[in-house]
Amino acid sequence: MAEDRLWAKGLPLDAAIHRFTVGEDPVVDLALVPHDALGSAAHARMLARVGLLPESDMRALVLALRTLHDEARAGTFTIRPEQEDGHTALEAALVGLVGEAGRRIHLARSRNDQVQLALRLLMREQVLGLGARAVELTEAFLDFAQAHVNTPMPGYTHMRRAMPSTFGMWGAAFAEGLLEELESLRGLWARLDRCPLGSAAGFGVPLPIDRQYVATLLGFSRVQRSPIDVQNSRGRHETAAVSWACSVAGGLEKWLWDVALFSTEEFGFLALPDAFTTGSSIMPQKKNPDVVELARGRCRELRGLARQVEEVASGLPSSYHRDFQLLKRPTLAALGSLREVLEVLTRLVPVVQVRAETAARASDDTLYAAHQAYVLAGQGLPFRDAYRQVAHQLADGTFKPDRTALTATHLGGAGNLGLEQARSELAAARSWLTETHRALAVCAERVWTP
Amino acid sequence: MAEDRLWAKGLPLDAAIHRFTVGEDPVVDLALVPHDALGSAAHARMLARVGLLPESDMRALVLALRTLHDEARAGTFTIRPEQEDGHTALEAALVGLVGEAGRRIHLARSRNDQVQLALRLLMREQVLGLGARAVELTEAFLDFAQAHVNTPMPGYTHMRRAMPSTFGMWGAAFAEGLLEELESLRGLWARLDRCPLGSAAGFGVPLPIDRQYVATLLGFSRVQRSPIDVQNSRGRHETAAVSWACSVAGGLEKWLWDVALFSTEEFGFLALPDAFTTGSSIMPQKKNPDVVELARGRCRELRGLARQVEEVASGLPSSYHRDFQLLKRPTLAALGSLREVLEVLTRLVPVVQVRAETAARASDDTLYAAHQAYVLAGQGLPFRDAYRQVAHQLADGTFKPDRTALTATHLGGAGNLGLEQARSELAAARSWLTETHRALAVCAERVWTP
Amino acid sequence: MAEDRLWAKGLPLDAAIHRFTVGEDPVVDLALVPHDALGSAAHARMLARVGLLPESDMRALVLALRTLHDEARAGTFTIRPEQEDGHTALEAALVGLVGEAGRRIHLARSRNDQVQLALRLLMREQVLGLGARAVELTEAFLDFAQAHVNTPMPGYTHMRRAMPSTFGMWGAAFAEGLLEELESLRGLWARLDRCPLGSAAGFGVPLPIDRQYVATLLGFSRVQRSPIDVQNSRGRHETAAVSWACSVAGGLEKWLWDVALFSTEEFGFLALPDAFTTGSSIMPQKKNPDVVELARGRCRELRGLARQVEEVASGLPSSYHRDFQLLKRPTLAALGSLREVLEVLTRLVPVVQVRAETAARASDDTLYAAHQAYVLAGQGLPFRDAYRQVAHQLADGTFKPDRTALTATHLGGAGNLGLEQARSELAAARSWLTETHRALAVCAERVWTP
Amino acid sequence: MAEDRLWAKGLPLDAAIHRFTVGEDPVVDLALVPHDALGSAAHARMLARVGLLPESDMRALVLALRTLHDEARAGTFTIRPEQEDGHTALEAALVGLVGEAGRRIHLARSRNDQVQLALRLLMREQVLGLGARAVELTEAFLDFAQAHVNTPMPGYTHMRRAMPSTFGMWGAAFAEGLLEELESLRGLWARLDRCPLGSAAGFGVPLPIDRQYVATLLGFSRVQRSPIDVQNSRGRHETAAVSWACSVAGGLEKWLWDVALFSTEEFGFLALPDAFTTGSSIMPQKKNPDVVELARGRCRELRGLARQVEEVASGLPSSYHRDFQLLKRPTLAALGSLREVLEVLTRLVPVVQVRAETAARASDDTLYAAHQAYVLAGQGLPFRDAYRQVAHQLADGTFKPDRTALTATHLGGAGNLGLEQARSELAAARSWLTETHRALAVCAERVWTP
Repeated sequence: MAEDRLWAKGLPLDAAIHRFTVGEDPVVDLALVPHDALGSAAHARMLARVGLLPESDMRALVLALRTLHDEARAGTFTIRPEQEDGHTALEAALVGLVGEAGRRIHLARSRNDQVQLALRLLMREQVLGLGARAVELTEAFLDFAQAHVNTPMPGYTHMRRAMPSTFGMWGAAFAEGLLEELESLRGLWARLDRCPLGSAAGFGVPLPIDRQYVATLLGFSRVQRSPIDVQNSRGRHETAAVSWACSVAGGLEKWLWDVALFSTEEFGFLALPDAFTTGSSIMPQKKNPDVVELARGRCRELRGLARQVEEVASGLPSSYHRDFQLLKRPTLAALGSLREVLEVLTRLVPVVQVRAETAARASDDTLYAAHQAYVLAGQGLPFRDAYRQVAHQLADGTFKPDRTALTATHLGGAGNLGLEQARSELAAARSWLTETHRALAVCAERVWTP
Repeated sequence: MAEDRLWAKGLPLDAAIHRFTVGEDPVVDLALVPHDALGSAAHARMLARVGLLPESDMRALVLALRTLHDEARAGTFTIRPEQEDGHTALEAALVGLVGEAGRRIHLARSRNDQVQLALRLLMREQVLGLGARAVELTEAFLDFAQAHVNTPMPGYTHMRRAMPSTFGMWGAAFAEGLLEELESLRGLWARLDRCPLGSAAGFGVPLPIDRQYVATLLGFSRVQRSPIDVQNSRGRHETAAVSWACSVAGGLEKWLWDVALFSTEEFGFLALPDAFTTGSSIMPQKKNPDVVELARGRCRELRGLARQVEEVASGLPSSYHRDFQLLKRPTLAALGSLREVLEVLTRLVPVVQVRAETAARASDDTLYAAHQAYVLAGQGLPFRDAYRQVAHQLADGTFKPDRTALTATHLGGAGNLGLEQARSELAAARSWLTETHRALAVCAERVWTP
Repeated sequence: MAEDRLWAKGLPLDAAIHRFTVGEDPVVDLALVPHDALGSAAHARMLARVGLLPESDMRALVLALRTLHDEARAGTFTIRPEQEDGHTALEAALVGLVGEAGRRIHLARSRNDQVQLALRLLMREQVLGLGARAVELTEAFLDFAQAHVNTPMPGYTHMRRAMPSTFGMWGAAFAEGLLEELESLRGLWARLDRCPLGSAAGFGVPLPIDRQYVATLLGFSRVQRSPIDVQNSRGRHETAAVSWACSVAGGLEKWLWDVALFSTEEFGFLALPDAFTTGSSIMPQKKNPDVVELARGRCRELRGLARQVEEVASGLPSSYHRDFQLLKRPTLAALGSLREVLEVLTRLVPVVQVRAETAARASDDTLYAAHQAYVLAGQGLPFRDAYRQVAHQLADGTFKPDRTALTATHLGGAGNLGLEQARSELAAARSWLTETHRALAVCAERVWTP
Repeated sequence: MAEDRLWAKGLPLDAAIHRFTVGEDPVVDLALVPHDALGSAAHARMLARVGLLPESDMRALVLALRTLHDEARAGTFTIRPEQEDGHTALEAALVGLVGEAGRRIHLARSRNDQVQLALRLLMREQVLGLGARAVELTEAFLDFAQAHVNTPMPGYTHMRRAMPSTFGMWGAAFAEGLLEELESLRGLWARLDRCPLGSAAGFGVPLPIDRQYVATLLGFSRVQRSPIDVQNSRGRHETAAVSWACSVAGGLEKWLWDVALFSTEEFGFLALPDAFTTGSSIMPQKKNPDVVELARGRCRELRGLARQVEEVASGLPSSYHRDFQLLKRPTLAALGSLREVLEVLTRLVPVVQVRAETAARASDDTLYAAHQAYVLAGQGLPFRDAYRQVAHQLADGTFKPDRTALTATHLGGAGNLGLEQARSELAAARSWLTETHRALAVCAERVWTP
């Protein structure tokens, strides 16, 4: 309905143009609606507090918004294409529920800060959710490492057998990579932990609003002061979130590549359970690692989504431009895709089958060439000379290392993976996520409570 | 239905894994089905010709495939999620229509060359369609140029007023850019003009198929001989097509940026019709160029889609990997998005309003500084000295050029845009597209004729 | 000299191949040498402590390394192409200074962890340096904002005049953006704050090294335990650092675009000092904003450098691959380029000239349309109705707002920019950078002290 | 020297700003100088022809330009940093040689079309050179295929053994991929085959120049008419050239990945000659495929360089912006890097060692599962049923295929690679390149001849 569109001025808008400008918003915005409802409720509370909205209107609005929030969470809220986006649909539904008061919600804000707030709340939630899933996957890697802590496999450099390693060492590597990501998540969180509401179209509003109050209501530790910076951060925050997702995916990509490689007939160190393989339409013998390949492809695809975000976000003067509408889809697609990959891997890691004998067979004497040089060096030979002596033995076939003479007992070595330290770092990450999540839930509950 | 899946071996596949591997195929593949049907019909004809399929089966298959092709074109064909992709859905529907013979269609081909053929046919169609739309837009630019051939405006370098120009010269520039794209389209076409069928999983089939015959049936000028290269070209062709789309979009981006800039209050050389602007939710005075901004954003977004394609296509050894499934969505999204942008611009270019007086007012004397230097140079002064003399006049305020002394009458100059040459190049491009399209339609008709 | 190359085995290596594998290392690695020297000295101290190196050798090594470190800092250290890289050159120089003991430095480490340590130390230094420069630029923006705190200019959305704003509000936006970057720098720092030494080729060493000791010596707050993760973090850390640089540059790009736009003849709100403009070879009247354009181009170019890093870092199984050599150049280029842009802007911001009257003239009544609607809303009209009333006045030319009725006094509004808060956040950022830098200098001094 | 700079107006330019604006031009432009000299000579001839330059001046200029061209080709021409770029250096050298007449060369052209012409000529030369090298590599692949035409190896899909293949089929795939690139090179050539000279700063010149004449002189088949489009094509052409390079590299990347994989201890199908491997600093047993890895990394790196070009080229209104200066370095780096990779591979392909027995051993019975299904299908069983029967035999261990029953004799199959067709396509590509190169050399000779 034309009257639903806030900016309609009775101009005849060609349907094609309408479709072009609306784009995918009616679908994409469904994810935003619950956050828009919560943000709107906080806005209403603030308006009432500073005297810009009657208490009774505020109460009606909060109640109705909670209903709409719950509908959106339950998947029963819909956005009609002619409504263009979720914000219009929400306001229309609000007016449907509370009448005239529904129109007062837009006082002292603009679509620009409204959407920024909803996106901020959404990204906060998504980032916490991704963190929680990364915690689970880290734990799966640590369990894997512990289960195979002494199972030998060759360590590779240049995809060539290099040094003795273990499946435990291999699994622990990905846990440590994820722990770094979980720690760096705090830097991303700091970016998101600023409340944009009150910046209006990008230059503030000439009304006595209380920006700090609404920030506190919504659990933000501070106000994003500059109204222009609020608009400048469209795209900046999305890029930061998706970059973090890409970094996580970059680590998983390595694991997936390893699994694809180690489960070939030729390597044979790993086997995939049937549930994670598929067959071929013409080759009856095949068991293909499709899940691994698709997850690996998803990790690469994420970098394409990141570039979509970067492209749309960049190349413009400051403040708001409509181009930014195109940020929503790739951002949500990227965060959603990482979530799926994390979930799939959390199920896959525990059931990957280790073929210990094949890996042991591949752990031949040559892996101990450096060890042997160290043994000789320990006996006083300069390392370079020890290296040359071993090289000669290898060349003339007389190399016979003492495989048990030395082991890597330093922190991180095969004999000392430091899994307990890793578990304690994981516990800290989990606890920060849980507490942050709980604190935000408390805030939301307070906003909703009549 | 599990039995629909070609590679089902009774393995219990967790629903989550199923959803992950199926991905968006049931939606994305709808675009592929008509092409898969046509390719399958040609395959059936070839099988019959070399004696691998009874004539009667072939006739039944072709007839049924035409029905399914028409359904898919009409939008009434559906792919059920449990069917995983369009190829399985097509085969299931085929068996539904013709029974056992439907199963024979898969003889001597694999899913890998089947999908490559369908994609090739689809991309051929899309590329011709984009070419046709680019022709229309080129014509709109040429009409614009002709309509404003002598309307002055400043020419800018560094976004600073530089030399006298005209709206005609401005419009002609984008026509010429598109003509280059239309010419380079032939290089892209040459890539696509190779028939992949018969390469099977990527290593051929040990059956006496006739690859040249099926290529000719489908209007390909040659066979893509190497079965491995057929798989290696997954992603390569998509990248080439999307790169071309990005190049086209790169030119349009400049026009859109110009329009956004020239229609500001400050420049004021252009105005947008109301149908192409929108208002603000809090600022009653605003008429925003949303369509222009969104189209500009789409041009940038295309480069992100290109990277998605590039990322998925790259970083792998030769031959088929399941990762390639992820190529389909961004490729279709990119080509579809360019189509929309071309359509929107073809409607916008003719109605952009030229504010001739404002542009004339901005075409002040300083634009003629170089002209004046040329006048002096024409009187024998070395250009460098003429330049310095004019610079002095500009500095002390005595500069008063003879604006009519010289005009650019060379090819491409304001007085000689060469629009007729452009129109004749456009006619050649249009004629190649039309003839190619017609030739393919004739081929398809022959495949379908019982 | 062939004997310089650690891995030479007397194999005849074609000069072309040699050049191809060496690539740009002899140039790029010059930046790494001082860090390699420091890391090597710490390694020597650790070896001595655990009894793997005589004290006297250690002292000789540390002394010689300090000499070489100082040479490298002074720009007098050179890498000969036949030495291939900086690590070989450093070891050769060490042997030249201390003889046989120079060869003992490579005990219990590999080229792989040696280069990772040098890169880590280098990136730590670079990141602190970039932070310091970002602090300076932030201060310049805050000073600009303060100097023009009440100078009106139009606020733009969609590049259309929208709301009243000030040059102060405009300048403060970029300060706040940089403050966010400075805060998020801590997340990046956490990634880099892990010592990779002792991971050897990627699987540890079978010698009783003390990884925590060397980490403490070098001022790292922890050991990067997993040797495999050390290799997996090649590219991950570079990507994180360059992504941060891109985020910073993304904000600067907006400012540069604004300046390019606001300094056109048509806008005229800003003027650039002559030192920041250049002329044209044929147009005597031109003053082009080349510095602004090049800096803007640099900001975009950074995203290309980021992709180089991402491309090289990705698409590989875990552990070391020689491909990683190609990470060094684009990483250093990106960080160096951001440094230059920050420096240029720090000099430009204070001298950009504000044309207050032009900006005031452009701040016409229509900017107050929303304000006027708020005035009416304040008088009890629902905002939507107030909006319509103003729209009508605008349409029939009767709009005459009371421009002084309302001002934005909330935090971040034109009347309350919150510059003191910003200055206090800036002081915190500066103090963290200074203290961190000082702590690392203390560590280095201790390593060097005989 | 300040007087060297064309646009110097006596403005005090801070050294830092000077360095920032000059950037890497003094180095990068060395590659442009010979092309600038040739283009300038053609320009001088045209000026003389239309009466804008005395014949005697023209002759002196052409003679001097030829000298400078030869110096630049010989590597003895230098650009001093204070000259800023190659164009200024060339003009300064010209004035040094012929005095006052040297200043007349800049009549009727601008720096903008001068640099575009030099870049166009450079890219033409580079593209032909890359084509020639791609021809050589294609030949190497065809020779490899022919030498191993019947040597069996497993064909892989999903990196799992799939179907019988041969080293001949493997090698032929990369030849066919390159042949497609060589064909598509013509589309790129068409873009470059337009003469930009005469477009001046982007709006033509008010002098009676003859653009067609100069185009013919330089061997262009047409004039790039629109002066604005000439500037708009900065970046567009670079992107097209680098995209083509990326497509070529994408194919090589697959070969390099294959070689890296097939030469592992686990696969063992290929071995690299010692000249193409390196050792380890701590592991005496290692022979690492560094050349292959670095070439593979270079292929990925190219996509980063492409993005640099795309980023700098995009996001701007039409016409010239100084940002474009940053296009030169990544474009030259990309084309130069591809050249090196092509050269290295052309040397590597002929010496890669095939381990026929290992590959034969890996070509086990299971590869013939599809073949066997085809055998059964040939005996009348529907393919789906044949597939199931073979699957059962595989499962219960009774599968024993008749490996000789069927072979792939169709075009492109292992038994019919179509190498003669490939050689004839290669001859056509080579002949086009040779003739085009010769035609341009004839043009240049005519320009130079007094």
